[in-house]
Amino acid sequence: MIHQQLAFLAELDRLKSVVRQSRLVNCSRRENSAEHSWHLAMFAPVLSEHADEAVDTAHVVKLLLVHDIVEIDAGDAPIHVSGTDKEALEHAERAAAERIFGLLPDEQAGCLLALWREFEAGGTPEARFAKALDRLQPLLLNTLTNGGTWTENGVTEAQVVERYGPAIRGGSSVLWKEAIALVGQHFASPSD
Amino acid sequence: MIHQQLAFLAELDRLKSVVRQSRLVNCSRRENSAEHSWHLAMFAPVLSEHADEAVDTAHVVKLLLVHDIVEIDAGDAPIHVSGTDKEALEHAERAAAERIFGLLPDEQAGCLLALWREFEAGGTPEARFAKALDRLQPLLLNTLTNGGTWTENGVTEAQVVERYGPAIRGGSSVLWKEAIALVGQHFASPSD
Repeated sequence: MIHQQLAFLAELDRLKSVVRQSRLVNCSRRENSAEHSWHLAMFAPVLSEHADEAVDTAHVVKLLLVHDIVEIDAGDAPIHVSGTDKEALEHAERAAAERIFGLLPDEQAGCLLALWREFEAGGTPEARFAKALDRLQPLLLNTLTNGGTWTENGVTEAQVVERYGPAIRGGSSVLWKEAIALVGQHFASPSD
Repeated sequence: MIHQQLAFLAELDRLKSVVRQSRLVNCSRRENSAEHSWHLAMFAPVLSEHADEAVDTAHVVKLLLVHDIVEIDAGDAPIHVSGTDKEALEHAERAAAERIFGLLPDEQAGCLLALWREFEAGGTPEARFAKALDRLQPLLLNTLTNGGTWTENGVTEAQVVERYGPAIRGGSSVLWKEAIALVGQHFASPSD
């Protein structure tokens, strides 16, 4: 059993090589999905008091730690690039979850698969708040990197509201209020 | 208060630029401390059944998520490089913890500072297990990268036992037994 567990943990190392669109705050390079997951796992305890519904913070952390693991096989789907075949992506992510979590002993595989499915479904207060943080983090990075992926992709303020709003508002009206203020400041003077 | 929280979370981004000695399994580059922290946070739930003492896994995860944040100011201290001024490093890490966690509102700052101190002190079952995982992870990476930092630094099998053994044995005799087998295999045929 321990060999299966160590094989799974070795496989997770590959998430460090999945590159996202967001740039680090120092603009040195783009962020990878492993360090993004750590960053998000720190967002949870720091910001959980702002969740609209009461949440179990430790459970939010679990959801965030596993939510991107499927990208090892399925890759990261950029938010500002159109033309993604959503059905094909969902199929690839489901297959990835089964393959990667399936490296573990059955009981643990079932637990992690359930966490990933809970995050994807967004049907619990914890999953809604986790999804809010998963949108808030790249929004924050963009406001700190002269617009980041918005500037690169010619994204308008209205498109930011449309693409980030539903998830963030779905978990926290307080965080959305703050986010929209940061977005407004950026588009009012984008060179800051 | 939310401004302090977001400023803290933005500051954490810098941990992604603290480079450790270990190489990724695919040998493409060295690991950074943010992705290392995520990897460790996944080691905890997967391996916690092997802890010598009963542990609260969620608490182990918390310790691991915050344990390296001080490196933003104090840097990573390589295990195989001698001549580190331990007293100066400890002083730098304490100052870093106070500065970085001090960006947060007082109550949250106190909580995270307490977690970091608990990890450092190693006086609880959770801290002992977290420290075991923090040694096991680079050991595992080295066995998967032709000896990694051992090969680079001419580290002998006896030195591996001396440098990794106390922390891993301190948290889990089962994991140490497995680790020592992997180490033995590596030194028996180091080109594997």
